[in-house]
Amino acid sequence: MAGITVAFTDLADRVRCGERRAIARALTLVENGGDDAQALLAVLHPDTGRAHLVGVTGAPGTGKSTLANALAGEYRHRGRQVGIIAVDPTSPYTGGAILGDRIRMQSHHGDSGVFIRSMATRGHLGGLAVATTDAVRVLDAAGFNPIMIETVGAGQSEVEIAGAAHTTLVVQAPGLGDDIQAIKAGILEIADIFVVNKADMPGADQAVAALRAMLMLGARERGQRQRETGIPPWPLPIEETVAAVGKGIPALVDKIEEHAAYLERTGQRVLLERERAESQVRDILRAWLLRNRLAALPEGELGRVAARVAEREVDPYTAAEELLAK
Amino acid sequence: MAGITVAFTDLADRVRCGERRAIARALTLVENGGDDAQALLAVLHPDTGRAHLVGVTGAPGTGKSTLANALAGEYRHRGRQVGIIAVDPTSPYTGGAILGDRIRMQSHHGDSGVFIRSMATRGHLGGLAVATTDAVRVLDAAGFNPIMIETVGAGQSEVEIAGAAHTTLVVQAPGLGDDIQAIKAGILEIADIFVVNKADMPGADQAVAALRAMLMLGARERGQRQRETGIPPWPLPIEETVAAVGKGIPALVDKIEEHAAYLERTGQRVLLERERAESQVRDILRAWLLRNRLAALPEGELGRVAARVAEREVDPYTAAEELLAK
Repeated sequence: MAGITVAFTDLADRVRCGERRAIARALTLVENGGDDAQALLAVLHPDTGRAHLVGVTGAPGTGKSTLANALAGEYRHRGRQVGIIAVDPTSPYTGGAILGDRIRMQSHHGDSGVFIRSMATRGHLGGLAVATTDAVRVLDAAGFNPIMIETVGAGQSEVEIAGAAHTTLVVQAPGLGDDIQAIKAGILEIADIFVVNKADMPGADQAVAALRAMLMLGARERGQRQRETGIPPWPLPIEETVAAVGKGIPALVDKIEEHAAYLERTGQRVLLERERAESQVRDILRAWLLRNRLAALPEGELGRVAARVAEREVDPYTAAEELLAK
Repeated sequence: MAGITVAFTDLADRVRCGERRAIARALTLVENGGDDAQALLAVLHPDTGRAHLVGVTGAPGTGKSTLANALAGEYRHRGRQVGIIAVDPTSPYTGGAILGDRIRMQSHHGDSGVFIRSMATRGHLGGLAVATTDAVRVLDAAGFNPIMIETVGAGQSEVEIAGAAHTTLVVQAPGLGDDIQAIKAGILEIADIFVVNKADMPGADQAVAALRAMLMLGARERGQRQRETGIPPWPLPIEETVAAVGKGIPALVDKIEEHAAYLERTGQRVLLERERAESQVRDILRAWLLRNRLAALPEGELGRVAARVAEREVDPYTAAEELLAK
């Protein structure tokens, strides 16, 4: 391991300097997972943990990507270097994510202060969450701050990934129809800021009013929890934006910064970092333990057991018990 | 284990007889996971593997649920007992899924030939995929056939779950806007039948034409794969429906039946069953291995290691290696 680590010191140095080609290479390495990725991440690790992570999630059609682009523009205006990781759940099946990057990059073309990357996680042993966290760490070490993590708010893993950021924006838009519009009460638990985007469209006022009503319903429960933990409350704000023309974007950035300061002041940032670390170590362990166990079994053993399960000779749990006992 | 198994023989018998309260209780048991669920599933296992599993996936707003309900109606008309498992990714955070079930059940109210259940997977150690497969097995043993598995086609796990069914329907609808509309080329790999729902709306013809063009692009690659495997090709059909008024539904059911016969005839059904079994055994093993490893560590060890990772003393991979070595 030490030998490999030395070999990646040069790449790590170039990532730290913000060299774009080195960052792109590092991200590809990290997406594929494996020993090389680990060696690189070990070298970069001391330089991570600085960036503020902003989760951006919402149903398709709410304009999440446009919003993330607009936020990046405002942060650039304020002299910050911005990273965007777009988690596209269909990308494991295609290389299509890359085209999306090219299209999106055009709005920040030639600006080295913005780095946009879509995740393609086909190869990563630890799955989507570990791959995303690893990519965030590369951008973090390269000095990007904030880093936005954009996910579709319709898949369980994707909602969890955005929810694990420091500040999570839950994006809605008017006029998408009830099926899409409906924000489940549970999303309260991951939202730090609600954004009603496309606020110039008909129905925006109703969307805001519906959110406000929902927040009132949840307020008592949140108050209860806060009294138990002793942490001063963060009043969940509802921000209205028209991301396509930049309306409401400076105010939204102010609100994100306010939330960042709140997390710092109340000691919650440290707790969040620990939670993130614990869940990543857990995910890595889970993947490694399975790999080691399967490697220790005779060649083709899992397939033979699966065939017996398919033929109803044994049920899956008993089969798993047998494999554990071997 | 033997003692527990005996205790569940009675419940299993009642599930096999299709008794609704017993089925509901069995599903709750299975959602929570654990020893009781395993014992029950072990008893039921020999009676599973009969149902044809139909995955129904698509973006929010395409009318998946209405389509699944309409299909259930047509299958009832043909004298079949139908199960529907709706995988709602936000349900882990809420109990809200239950309300959805109540609303949806109204259209099949009093009909004991339809059983609809939304998954709430908060407690299941093995995650969404294992919980869904376990629920399917309960309905399978209770004699429901087909069983539809309805997921939002926007999350990685959800797409994989629907894609693991015997016949997977990928649902689209006109007029949802480019962001939602766009079917990624990769979805070709999981679709057995494309459905353009809401086919009476403007833009339906374009949606069908776009799909047809995309299928032409993918046809050569599929042909290649089929020559390699020697399996005769299944020409991917595009079915137009207006689920809300039942239009196109009998033809779609005919097509699903045709695909079921094709899988049987070409021996692919057996292969699919083995794949399903292998992936479930793998998921169970992964969850158990982590649980056992964490239980073997000193109390609070994972939290201490996570704190060191958060303070940048050690990177997550090295931390996981340390925990593995302990």
